[in-house]
Amino acid sequence: MEQVQHAIQDEYGEAFAHCYGCGRLNDNGLQLRTGWDGDGTVTVYEPRTEHTAIPGFVYGGLIASLVDCHGTGSASLALHRKNGFEPGSGEEPPRFVTASLHVDYLRPTPQGVPLKAIGRTEEIHPKKWDVHIEVFAGETKCATGKVTAVVMPNTFLKGSE
Amino acid sequence: MEQVQHAIQDEYGEAFAHCYGCGRLNDNGLQLRTGWDGDGTVTVYEPRTEHTAIPGFVYGGLIASLVDCHGTGSASLALHRKNGFEPGSGEEPPRFVTASLHVDYLRPTPQGVPLKAIGRTEEIHPKKWDVHIEVFAGETKCATGKVTAVVMPNTFLKGSE
Repeated sequence: MEQVQHAIQDEYGEAFAHCYGCGRLNDNGLQLRTGWDGDGTVTVYEPRTEHTAIPGFVYGGLIASLVDCHGTGSASLALHRKNGFEPGSGEEPPRFVTASLHVDYLRPTPQGVPLKAIGRTEEIHPKKWDVHIEVFAGETKCATGKVTAVVMPNTFLKGSE
Repeated sequence: MEQVQHAIQDEYGEAFAHCYGCGRLNDNGLQLRTGWDGDGTVTVYEPRTEHTAIPGFVYGGLIASLVDCHGTGSASLALHRKNGFEPGSGEEPPRFVTASLHVDYLRPTPQGVPLKAIGRTEEIHPKKWDVHIEVFAGETKCATGKVTAVVMPNTFLKGSE
């Protein structure tokens, strides 16, 4: 399976590395990893056996999770690059959260092959980015999505209202 | 924790009961259960400890999964009722899949309390329903969503192109 060499999630501060989708410190999570591929972003993940919708096909919520963390990871990569840094530099990147998530399911997504999410980042303003995403199973585009990601507000660390 | 008494997922045929989100036969899944509450629909789920975004707050992909299966379950409830049946009647309900999923995250969602998804179904045509969803943690509305659900196409059982 294709691997992402320098993932933005490898650089998140410890407090931000427990996400079920992409936290390297969440032992029960998906541990999604997102990196650059030229000007695009990529996340590769092979769903587990239990991530089924109907036997043989991948659960839509798993695809939504892939889109979600691919979106926040891609936004972090983009702002980090804008700030002059690449993953692997040792600089802690900005941590984004998802403001909105949209997924269009184009066709049933087969199990047993790695899924690849490809992203294109668009700056809305420095703390808010849209990420336009395509999800492939092999050569077949199975879903498209859009994530609006914002730099994490302080409420996440201080506790919500 | 409030429980749904008659869930539509209890009535799905065996072939359709392996969904990671809402399949009663998926031992590793979330086993979400969706029922009527008057003219609205309801799903209640308490996220697991590992379903974290940042420690103390629920992972957005888990909320998307709740919205996803609440959407397909609600559409199934609605068409089943239109056909003259209620869950518990023993009639096998129609099985829907998600055509599109949208979630707006309004605020960080606290862990440690059950989440409740509330749905309102809207018939677009008999095989296509929109479900408008609000997700609450206790009394606090944390997310809203919309699922467009369609009656499962045959490609899901025959294998995709």
